[in-house]
Amino acid sequence: MTTTVITRIGELVTNDPEREGLLGLVHDAAVVLDGATVAWVGPAADAPAADAQVDAGGRAVIPGFVDSHSHLVFAGDRSAEFEARMTGQPYTAGGIRTTVARTRAASDDQLTSHVARLVAEMRAQGTTTLEIKSGYGLSVHDEARSLAVARQFTEETTFLGAHVVPADTSPEDYVELVTGPMLEAAAPHARWIDVFCEDGAFDVDQARAVLAAGADSGLRGRLHANQLTYGGGVRLACELGLVAVDHCTFLSDADVAALSESGTIATLLPGVEFSTRQPYPDARGLIDAGVRVALASDCNPGSCFTSSMALCIALAVREMRMSPAEALHAATATGAAALDRDDVGVLAPGKAADLVLLEAPSYVHLAYRPGVPLVAGVWQGGRPGLG
Amino acid sequence: MTTTVITRIGELVTNDPEREGLLGLVHDAAVVLDGATVAWVGPAADAPAADAQVDAGGRAVIPGFVDSHSHLVFAGDRSAEFEARMTGQPYTAGGIRTTVARTRAASDDQLTSHVARLVAEMRAQGTTTLEIKSGYGLSVHDEARSLAVARQFTEETTFLGAHVVPADTSPEDYVELVTGPMLEAAAPHARWIDVFCEDGAFDVDQARAVLAAGADSGLRGRLHANQLTYGGGVRLACELGLVAVDHCTFLSDADVAALSESGTIATLLPGVEFSTRQPYPDARGLIDAGVRVALASDCNPGSCFTSSMALCIALAVREMRMSPAEALHAATATGAAALDRDDVGVLAPGKAADLVLLEAPSYVHLAYRPGVPLVAGVWQGGRPGLG
Repeated sequence: MTTTVITRIGELVTNDPEREGLLGLVHDAAVVLDGATVAWVGPAADAPAADAQVDAGGRAVIPGFVDSHSHLVFAGDRSAEFEARMTGQPYTAGGIRTTVARTRAASDDQLTSHVARLVAEMRAQGTTTLEIKSGYGLSVHDEARSLAVARQFTEETTFLGAHVVPADTSPEDYVELVTGPMLEAAAPHARWIDVFCEDGAFDVDQARAVLAAGADSGLRGRLHANQLTYGGGVRLACELGLVAVDHCTFLSDADVAALSESGTIATLLPGVEFSTRQPYPDARGLIDAGVRVALASDCNPGSCFTSSMALCIALAVREMRMSPAEALHAATATGAAALDRDDVGVLAPGKAADLVLLEAPSYVHLAYRPGVPLVAGVWQGGRPGLG
Repeated sequence: MTTTVITRIGELVTNDPEREGLLGLVHDAAVVLDGATVAWVGPAADAPAADAQVDAGGRAVIPGFVDSHSHLVFAGDRSAEFEARMTGQPYTAGGIRTTVARTRAASDDQLTSHVARLVAEMRAQGTTTLEIKSGYGLSVHDEARSLAVARQFTEETTFLGAHVVPADTSPEDYVELVTGPMLEAAAPHARWIDVFCEDGAFDVDQARAVLAAGADSGLRGRLHANQLTYGGGVRLACELGLVAVDHCTFLSDADVAALSESGTIATLLPGVEFSTRQPYPDARGLIDAGVRVALASDCNPGSCFTSSMALCIALAVREMRMSPAEALHAATATGAAALDRDDVGVLAPGKAADLVLLEAPSYVHLAYRPGVPLVAGVWQGGRPGLG
């Protein structure tokens, strides 16, 4: 196994809770990678020798982004729907069905190469851990193959048969399908199960039934909740002790209290609000109430087709009043926690060698320089790319 | 001179007024470049032969972005000020003086290499025509050398000695300096003259005096106006028949009427409002009133350190209710008009071979996929880069 030392790091974000501050910053730092893991972190002056050396030239290094919410397995795009919406028409969940038709019509190879392209695009922007959901198949065959495609790219696959009720099925019949034959076909390819708990999709009782069936098949639960309307989804997630509940745009005081008490992470997806012109979730209020907040892209062809975690950070700072440090932490360490992972999102000995060299002296530039591609290099499992 | 045909363009934005629609779209198109100019535009099936061929593979091609407002000649960054502002403190023009001190202390070589880095960053994001202002020197020597540095990168250089009054000078004495010895030293390196007409900077009478002196030295006028407060700056620009007035955030009905009647272009800089959490200019209202609207980055270390014209387009659509087509046109053809240029911003025979290949089937993706680097290739004066 070769070792690599990345040295002359002007500002290193470790997220190591044993170091000072939220981000565990080290200045004038070095990191030593040994194969796929971090072997050493500390002041550059004290760095041990290694087989290879990379000079960061005073630039910043951060943990790779952990994007805990994406919908990459689909075909076609919905730019026309986007254009219509931004020039006057409201967004409804119905548009998902357009993508379902295109996804069902695509070959396995087409789906795989499309996901590969998006995963490469994300990696080039610094994302090194990625969750991918199904949810545009909505048949036994198409959900199972969507997850089989996703599994080629990540261990963090999520069965989202309960994304929307297909046009030709009743909600009751569809929940029976999802919790029966579809779950059986999907489970071997998935780690998680998820439900879009929302007016127009699935109600709290249906979500509860789907999550219970998933748990019986060994899948851990997560939830889309309170995106478009107030409702019981977030409280259900807290009651069930789910690791994360995603969107959290319309929250009552009771929802916030439940999140704070349960420890369930609120994963905010501000790219959605940007792309649908909805109000943003109240990240500041959640953090001040003691809720753990993660940020993810929700990359999907309908409500949000960004893959940029840096944009999510910039939006979190601009629109949700998170500090740049809180936003970065939410996009890395808390993103990892939202996938119940402690091996990524942190740079410390024994952790994954997933890190990003920025074309900037400080992580603050991710928010200070919105839209600018600032990734100069990416290491994923110790393998270098770009820079 | 070698010719190049770019063929299999799924969607070509020409901005050619002789074609249909605002963007003069051609589908299944080709463009032939002959040295630094466009030689032919039309359906791919009819394209003439050329020495070299590039296969766009169904992707979109657009004119290169024309960024008519930037402040690239400076040293240091103000990420700490940004962080402070976004976590609670208001923005005032005073911060400019921080950058002045750093800029004066930098060597010519340091300034040049810093500008080179930013220009390369912009080009990689699709900007092929760029205006650069001075304004962080504020002494005869430092304004002149700032413009000499800028002139190495663009013909569109703007003398902005009247950016802010330096700390050790009275406004009266400073205007005398700007309109006298400083203008004399700056004029050989500049095409334009500009004034920051705003509370805390220069009032309307001072702006009028500076622009008049500039005109006497052969410099054409432009103006920063109505960024932070209502005031007479926009009406002054219209009265003087300036080609463009920039910011236009706080406008009265009389300002809008003046813009509409004069034909002066309102250049909106939504990256500033994003990065300062100010309200956005009313692009929709301006367009509906018949005002020509351009978009530019305002890339500068204080109020807006983005260099991304794509982000400006996404913000224009999300926040200012421009359609994706209006926003792209504003960032290309109308940006060119704001520099009184008709050789760029349009793809038609005889125009500059400045164009961008997108990693997308349609220009709509610039707004539909915010924050994602979508530039697959850039040609500037016919010279290829990237893709």
